[in-house]
Amino acid sequence: MEQNGIATRPIRCKAAVCKAAGEPLELEEVEVAPPRAHEVRIKVVCASVCHTDITFWRMKDGPSMFPLILGHEAVGVVESVGERVEEVAVGDTVVPVFLAQCGECADCRSPRSNLCSALPNRPGMPRDGTTRFSLAATGEPVHNFLSISSFAEYTVVDVAQVVKLGGAAAALPPEKACLLSCGVATGIGAAWKVAAVEPGSTVAVFGLGAVGLAVAQGSKMRGATRIIGVDLNPDKFEIGRKMGITDFVNPNDIGEQQTVSEVIKDMTGGNGADYCFECIGSVSVMAEAFKSSRMGWGKTVVLGVAGSVAPISIPAFDILKGRSVIGSHLGGIKPKDDIPVLAQKCLDKELELDEFITHRMGFDDINRAFDLLAKGKCLRCIIWMDGAKGNGA
Amino acid sequence: MEQNGIATRPIRCKAAVCKAAGEPLELEEVEVAPPRAHEVRIKVVCASVCHTDITFWRMKDGPSMFPLILGHEAVGVVESVGERVEEVAVGDTVVPVFLAQCGECADCRSPRSNLCSALPNRPGMPRDGTTRFSLAATGEPVHNFLSISSFAEYTVVDVAQVVKLGGAAAALPPEKACLLSCGVATGIGAAWKVAAVEPGSTVAVFGLGAVGLAVAQGSKMRGATRIIGVDLNPDKFEIGRKMGITDFVNPNDIGEQQTVSEVIKDMTGGNGADYCFECIGSVSVMAEAFKSSRMGWGKTVVLGVAGSVAPISIPAFDILKGRSVIGSHLGGIKPKDDIPVLAQKCLDKELELDEFITHRMGFDDINRAFDLLAKGKCLRCIIWMDGAKGNGA
Repeated sequence: MEQNGIATRPIRCKAAVCKAAGEPLELEEVEVAPPRAHEVRIKVVCASVCHTDITFWRMKDGPSMFPLILGHEAVGVVESVGERVEEVAVGDTVVPVFLAQCGECADCRSPRSNLCSALPNRPGMPRDGTTRFSLAATGEPVHNFLSISSFAEYTVVDVAQVVKLGGAAAALPPEKACLLSCGVATGIGAAWKVAAVEPGSTVAVFGLGAVGLAVAQGSKMRGATRIIGVDLNPDKFEIGRKMGITDFVNPNDIGEQQTVSEVIKDMTGGNGADYCFECIGSVSVMAEAFKSSRMGWGKTVVLGVAGSVAPISIPAFDILKGRSVIGSHLGGIKPKDDIPVLAQKCLDKELELDEFITHRMGFDDINRAFDLLAKGKCLRCIIWMDGAKGNGA
Repeated sequence: MEQNGIATRPIRCKAAVCKAAGEPLELEEVEVAPPRAHEVRIKVVCASVCHTDITFWRMKDGPSMFPLILGHEAVGVVESVGERVEEVAVGDTVVPVFLAQCGECADCRSPRSNLCSALPNRPGMPRDGTTRFSLAATGEPVHNFLSISSFAEYTVVDVAQVVKLGGAAAALPPEKACLLSCGVATGIGAAWKVAAVEPGSTVAVFGLGAVGLAVAQGSKMRGATRIIGVDLNPDKFEIGRKMGITDFVNPNDIGEQQTVSEVIKDMTGGNGADYCFECIGSVSVMAEAFKSSRMGWGKTVVLGVAGSVAPISIPAFDILKGRSVIGSHLGGIKPKDDIPVLAQKCLDKELELDEFITHRMGFDDINRAFDLLAKGKCLRCIIWMDGAKGNGA
């Protein structure tokens, strides 16, 4: 039943429900309520697993509330819209994003911020504080994750968190569009917008997951001539080379006499790197990244989400030497402004995303995707909701 | 005796010698050797006491080495030059500065750094690692401080650390020129160059000494509309108002229910300040300044030199919200490029320094100047080496 083009019927569909921290997701039938005012209901085409899903999946001491539908990297098609939605229409291809862009608050109006202050993002907090999901069998409400919850065949998202891929961008293959919604955009944005890497620079990237490799790719695009990758997993080094990494440091291989920052200083004539990026979420690695940064202008960019409340420890004497530390969500990307630009760069082959997609599978295999990512055995696993394009690779 | 215009004779004159940490300075006759290659010998006209002098004077566990001549804010006239000095000549008015600018290293060539990497500055380390001072009575060498040691009637400084005030700038009153060599330049530079304060901004300044008040003045010049000053000393509030401070927070007055950062957030509609400046050198105040900074773009600028090796503690979760921390020596000022610009602004009355000069006295009263500054009872005390202009105020 629809009234004036506004959907009023719930949809029953399949979702991956997390019932307790760290437990395998359960594929269950859920009911997805119609979108309310300012909301759109999206038929998810494909989704990918980001390490932040793993972090919140594992986190026993909040802020996640169970049962929960995880997932925040996806692309889909608008199935229906709630009242007062004019920006998108049924049938539009859209990328839901964990950061809102209302367009009207002080942050959205400033070029300096990408953190909408009108719609603060917290797990399970859409605009009116409620969820559109419930278990079909029992009616029990199911919580949202980052107000997106894309590990479901249908999801409801605030229009402020939806980026329309119109015009030529609508032709971008879904699995590439999907990657632009979080990890890859974060890394590219961090190099381009947060650090504004200069040509000829030396960059150090701590953690060679999708975010770190996207930092390397973005830094290379900005003209960095030396890109040092740091990771404990030697398997990351071959893929890293394809993304622009020129030198590798494996902390397991350097012996106990030296720290990673000392090795990086030795590699750079005693200077340290011009830009250091922490893409893990470890406060000790953040401190090591800072120590690896050059006197005079060294900038450390923190992108990893720490799973603990421990603080970063920065020597006061060293920061006085012209160094800086800056943090960012989504690499400073303003979703509605910048994701269409990234999509165009993909279409123009300026930005190549093929190497990020290491696995494809159907929705039923989602726990395998979690396992691969948690073990560092994949970069991005694309989960096709209809299963048709999953090759199980 | 001079050969080819190169001085070869030592000069005997008066200097304030610090023989042990925290002990009163002793006015003694010293011998000042002639300048070596790349050095100039300067007749100090006036000097001022900066809090960094106090910090190093008190520091019992290094890096200061005794006996020592402190002082690093001064103006003088070139008395003689060593070999290979072409930039200045006998009779030039010059400001010696604790940061070198060789003009040739990667840092000097970059607009991003003001930390010359060719002449690293350490206490007691001129270019060749020696001192030009010795006690006249015994011949015992006396160490340099920041390669300047301006609490002496004559001093020898590397030409890379000397800024010539030529043309109109030579007419700047000496006591104002003196102020441009460290504290005031640091504060103005921090607002202009490091933070690049934007019009309409809210600024919080922690510590209302000369550096903090210069930050306020620089921020006001950049169009900041709200400037919150934080200091334990209520006497600083009246002078602060003249420098652009619009609101005051005295941590002693806010009770135990709230922290300073909570008060600042309350004062700013929950946001926090756009720019926070730490001008004390306390790592706990640095952390509080960071907490007072706005989500999205809040920038914390660390200017205070911590007397301890304790690190700054920055919550990782909060820095991800678009905040940054940056440190600086001399407020990002490149001495030879920027100090003449500041001098011109003084001559043009764009920059008013009168309020910074709270006391004037002769050289013999230097211990009183230390006492006044240590007790927070003065901003800048100008020490006239000839005593003539000291009014004992």
